[in-house]
Parts: sequence; C-alpha cells; structure tokens
Amino acid sequence: MKFNNRNVFISKNAQIGKNVKIGDNSVIYDNVIIKDNTIISNDCIIGEPLQSYYSNVNDYQNPPTIIGSDSVIRSHCIIYCGCEIGDYFSTGHRVTIREYSKFGTNCRIGTVSDIQGYVTFGNYCWLHSNVHIGQKSTLGNFVFVYPYVVFTNDPTPPSDLCIGPSVGDYSQIAVFSVLLPGVKIGKHCLVGAGSIVGKDVDDFQLVVGSPAVVKKDVRQVKDRVTGESHYPWPYRFTRGMPWSDKGFDEWEKEFGI
Amino acid sequence: MKFNNRNVFISKNAQIGKNVKIGDNSVIYDNVIIKDNTIISNDCIIGEPLQSYYSNVNDYQNPPTIIGSDSVIRSHCIIYCGCEIGDYFSTGHRVTIREYSKFGTNCRIGTVSDIQGYVTFGNYCWLHSNVHIGQKSTLGNFVFVYPYVVFTNDPTPPSDLCIGPSVGDYSQIAVFSVLLPGVKIGKHCLVGAGSIVGKDVDDFQLVVGSPAVVKKDVRQVKDRVTGESHYPWPYRFTRGMPWSDKGFDEWEKEFGI
Amino acid sequence: MKFNNRNVFISKNAQIGKNVKIGDNSVIYDNVIIKDNTIISNDCIIGEPLQSYYSNVNDYQNPPTIIGSDSVIRSHCIIYCGCEIGDYFSTGHRVTIREYSKFGTNCRIGTVSDIQGYVTFGNYCWLHSNVHIGQKSTLGNFVFVYPYVVFTNDPTPPSDLCIGPSVGDYSQIAVFSVLLPGVKIGKHCLVGAGSIVGKDVDDFQLVVGSPAVVKKDVRQVKDRVTGESHYPWPYRFTRGMPWSDKGFDEWEKEFGI
Repeated sequence: MKFNNRNVFISKNAQIGKNVKIGDNSVIYDNVIIKDNTIISNDCIIGEPLQSYYSNVNDYQNPPTIIGSDSVIRSHCIIYCGCEIGDYFSTGHRVTIREYSKFGTNCRIGTVSDIQGYVTFGNYCWLHSNVHIGQKSTLGNFVFVYPYVVFTNDPTPPSDLCIGPSVGDYSQIAVFSVLLPGVKIGKHCLVGAGSIVGKDVDDFQLVVGSPAVVKKDVRQVKDRVTGESHYPWPYRFTRGMPWSDKGFDEWEKEFGI
Repeated sequence: MKFNNRNVFISKNAQIGKNVKIGDNSVIYDNVIIKDNTIISNDCIIGEPLQSYYSNVNDYQNPPTIIGSDSVIRSHCIIYCGCEIGDYFSTGHRVTIREYSKFGTNCRIGTVSDIQGYVTFGNYCWLHSNVHIGQKSTLGNFVFVYPYVVFTNDPTPPSDLCIGPSVGDYSQIAVFSVLLPGVKIGKHCLVGAGSIVGKDVDDFQLVVGSPAVVKKDVRQVKDRVTGESHYPWPYRFTRGMPWSDKGFDEWEKEFGI
Repeated sequence: MKFNNRNVFISKNAQIGKNVKIGDNSVIYDNVIIKDNTIISNDCIIGEPLQSYYSNVNDYQNPPTIIGSDSVIRSHCIIYCGCEIGDYFSTGHRVTIREYSKFGTNCRIGTVSDIQGYVTFGNYCWLHSNVHIGQKSTLGNFVFVYPYVVFTNDPTPPSDLCIGPSVGDYSQIAVFSVLLPGVKIGKHCLVGAGSIVGKDVDDFQLVVGSPAVVKKDVRQVKDRVTGESHYPWPYRFTRGMPWSDKGFDEWEKEFGI
C-alpha cells in the first residue's frame, strides 16, 4: 500500500542502504546516510538543514546525518542534519529531532515528541508520546519517559545558560513531570506523575510531588495484581528487552551495563 | 481552493461514498469505507496499516476502517485501520488515532490530540487540542476533555498491565489533568485544572488537586457572570447539542441516556 | 536542497513579494499576501479557510491573510486566513495558527504550538515548543512563554464565555503553567514552572504553585552562575533583542515601550 515512489525526493548526495523503503512525499537531503533495511514512511524530512541554510543557501554544506539499520521512521517525522541514530530505531508520527542528537541502538520515540538537539541517549531508551527533551539532556540506557514530560535547561529564563538534566540507567519518568535544569536522576529511579524535580535523586528512589520529595525505595513498590515488588523492573518486564530470553541476571552478567 | 485532486492516492479496495471530497496529498489505504458527504482535507492518511505490515508486506491484509457520514477530517490527520467512527465526526489538524478506536456519533477531536487505540467513545464527546487518551480508555456520552489532559493505563511502568480510565456521561476534565490507571469518573463530574486523579469519583463531584480530592458538589459551582449554578451544564450550554431546540429536560425525556 | 517547486500550489488571488521562497508540497490559498524575502518551507498551508468554507464552497470568500517580510515559516505549519503577522516572524515546525490572530514584529512561535485564533501579540514575543494560547488572549511585548504552557478562557466549561488572559511586557511564563481565564499578569513577572495562576499578578512578582502565590520580587532572584540579580532580564539577556548593541537603558530611552 505504501511505497509507491510518488513525489519522493532523494538528494544525489545521500547514501541509501540495501532494502531501504522510502514513503511517498518524503524528502532525503544532502549527506544523509540511511543504513540497510530501514523504512522511512510517508511525508518525512530526513536531514533537515540548519538555520544557517536559509541565510546562506549557496555556501551551505549539510552536516552528515546517519540513520541506523533496521529502523522504522513513521510518517510526518522531521529529523535534522547532524544526528547520529543507532540501529533498530523506531518512531511514532510527527516526531521532531533537531540537529546533532545522538541515539544508541533500539531507541523508540513516540508520536509528537520533540527532541531539541545536542542530546545524548544510550541504548533502549523509550519515549512515549509528546515528550519534550531540551538541549544538552543526557539519558542513560533503558530509560523510559512517559507522555508530557519536559526536560528543561535554563534556570533563569531567558539566559544563555543551557544545563540539561541527566537520567541514569533503568530510570522511569512518569507523565507530566518536569526535570529542572541540571538535575541528575540516578539509576533505577521512579519519578511519579506530575512531579517537578529540582534536586538530584539517588539510585533506587521513588520521588513524587511539586517540588518532588523522596517517598520510598522503589523496591518497596508493589505490583497491583501480584502484590510483589515490581522494581527493579527488568525482572518483571521483558517485552522487547535484550534479556527476554535468558532473564535479566544472566543477561547482565554477560552484557550488562 | 482545496480539493484539486493533486497527488491523491486512493486504494482500489477503498469504498468512497457519494459527495465525498478528498484533499490534495491525502492517502486512503485498503479496506477503508468513507460514508457520504464526508470531507478528508489535505495531507491526511486514512487506514494507516498496523505495525505488522512493515515486517510482512506481502501477506498483510488491512483491517476495515469506517469513517461515518457528514464528517470533516482536517489536514495532516492520521487515522489507523480498524477504527470505526460514527457520523458527524470532526477533527482539528494533526490528530493521530491509532488502531481499533471506536467513536459514536458527533464526536470532535482537537488539533494534535493522540488517541492511542483500543478506546471506546460514546456520542458527542468533544476533545479539545492536545489530549492524550491511552489504550483501553472508555468515555461515555457528552464527555468534554480540555487541552493537555492525559489518560494513563499502566500503574507500575513499565509492565504489561493496561487498565484504562473511564469517564461517565456529561463529565468535564479540565486542562492539565491526569487520570491514573483504572480510575472511574462518574456522571456530571468536573475535574479541575491540574488535577491528578487516583481514586474513583462519584457522580456530580468537583475534584481538584494532586492528589485530587472532592471539593464540593458541582451543582454548587456558580456561573461567573450570572451567579447562578452552572452545573449540570446541559441546562446552560446548548451550542451543537441535540437539545438546543427543545431544552435538555424535554430532550432527555425523549432520547436521553 | 529545498525549494524545488515540486507540487506547490499558489492561488491566482495570492500576492507573493520579491525574493519569496515557497517549499515543496506547500499551498497558498486565496487572498494571502506574503511580503518580501519571506520563506515558507515544505508542506505548509497558508490562508487555511474558515469552517464556513466546507459548508458553502461556492459563495465563500477567503478573508485576507498577511505574512510580514523577512519571515521564516518552517515545514508543516498551518496558518489560517484572517491573520495579520508582522515582519521578521519565525516559526518551528507543525505550528497551527487559527484565524484572525495578530502578531507584531519579530515574534517566534515554537514547534507544535497551537494558537487558537482571535489573539493579539505585541512585538518580540517568543513562544517555545508546544504552547497553547486560547482565543482572546493578549500578550504584550517581549513576552516569553516556555513549553507546555496553556492559556485558558472558559471559567465554567462548557459555556459560551470566552475571557482570555493577558500578559504584560517582559514577563516570563515557565513550563507547565496554566493561566486561568481572564487572569492579568503584570510587567516583568515570572510565573514559575508548574503554576496554576488564578489571580492577577502585579508587576515584578515571582509567583509559583497551584494555586500560584507570590514568592518574592523577581529582582531578588539570582543568576545561578554569577550570583547577581538576573531580573529585570533585559539587562542580562540580549541575544536577538533590539537593545543588543546599545544596552537596554539606552534603547529604552530611544524606543522603549
């Protein structure tokens, strides 16, 4: 149904891998590299030029953009030039990823999410719909972020300071939370819904509220159905995770972070 | 001005009713049924295939999608296959509706809203801009939801549990509120701005806060101009409502829910 | 790279200035005026018709729409008819601006922001990503609004009342804040992250919380690095501001508001 090659524009200076499909009305700009088996769906823009392109069209050189292999970019996404995106990446619709964003492998970015550029993601970060990641944010591995979360970076707006938050491996940031500029969230943390986090959070803490305060150790949070501890969640949730076959302990011994 | 039939793609396996208009750059996929007098504006995708399409293009069969009569889908919307949408539906721009969503008649979905699929809406539900409805949510009839409201469904993220909230007839969910997983909101309720609702709410209650607590009976809330009780709102607001001619009491006797 | 003139539609009744560029797949409807040196990027809709167009295609006249000179409208934006937009305007991607919105000069509107129409902006208003401005809102000059802020206008939803908030010159509204209907924010104010503002705010106040209360005079807020007062911010932040050459005091004497 898709991929009829209608109204597709691919720069001569793009490199398109084997078995790549590009949807109708999509545009691939200069110096984009798309690796094998990747799908770019309809109405996407890959390698969107920097602001300076508009003021200096003739001398402008588009920085290289890399989209990993075996990825799926759904329709209406815009990915700027200068991004380096690992293999097995996937997005929802209408995702905007600004320039010089770096993603490890197996990341997923939900519909309408807005990545502001100059960010660093590890592997297996999953962002749900409508997440806003400010410039210079850092996410570790297996970080999950839920809808309408905002990572901020300017402590006294407006200013020229830009101090992104950072989130450690396996941490979860629930809906409607704000990470204030420069906050460091540890590993295996849970930020509860609607929290505004202004202070650093140690590993394994559940923080909630505005301003967010420590409520308990996440290992005390029970599963609603089984009544057992749900966290650390890698023992309870394996769908799409690299330990789905052998279990988290075994995986961690071999490959763990 | 619109509807020049430029760059439109309609599957041979779609059924297009009488007097239907389809805007430029729009795509109608396999097994979509669009009923009479409906308008699909520019740059829309109707019948977007499931994830499994991408991994198995050859054997894939697109589930049927039904768009009711006399509807207006504004530009840049994406509606997945498997949806059943009643007559007199309308959307703003850039709405995403995922698979197997069911809507009664006369529903309106605002710009950028994101319906995650597997949801059930009654009749006359109006969602304002930028509402996020998680999977397995249930809305009754005449439910109005205001901007930046999120319906969630996973009590201990990440997990494989998915317990959507439900909202009763005539209830109103104000801006920036979150319904936590499985919460049941009664009929004629008002959830105040910025609330996080974690407990069930009885009929006619005004709840506010994080966590949301009962403040008063909604029938005690006054109209700012007249000083009279504003709720139950169907006595005060009739624009676009089926009781606009005869009044709510008379309508309810004849057709009411 | 852009501007290949593929699949562009421009009404015969539009007036396009000198040195204007229009991106691929964009549409310019009747009675749109685009002034000199302006760039409309890909997949944009300028002069989107009113609702009445759909019910009365033959007699419909599109109200005039003016896009100022030296502006940049990024891809996937939709600007309705009846808008009057000053010079040096710029937008991110996927911005929706509904009918009869008025903007002074040098305004910037971030990605996914949703301007609901019938609003009035002064000069140099900067909206970050994903801001929602309800109908009949008024912004002064040099008002900065950060992500996921909502301006509301109906005190007892649903009703036919529409009372927009107003914000004075130089004020800052931080992430995740809600301005309730009819609230008046003074000049040089700072609304802290996650606030719900239900009462008017005097000049130079920092308000925070839900409901928002006065915390201090903004002139007591220190810069995190220098330890000096950061506000009034025009003395500390000059990037893109008209006083970047001569300083705020000097500029204000000559041109100030």
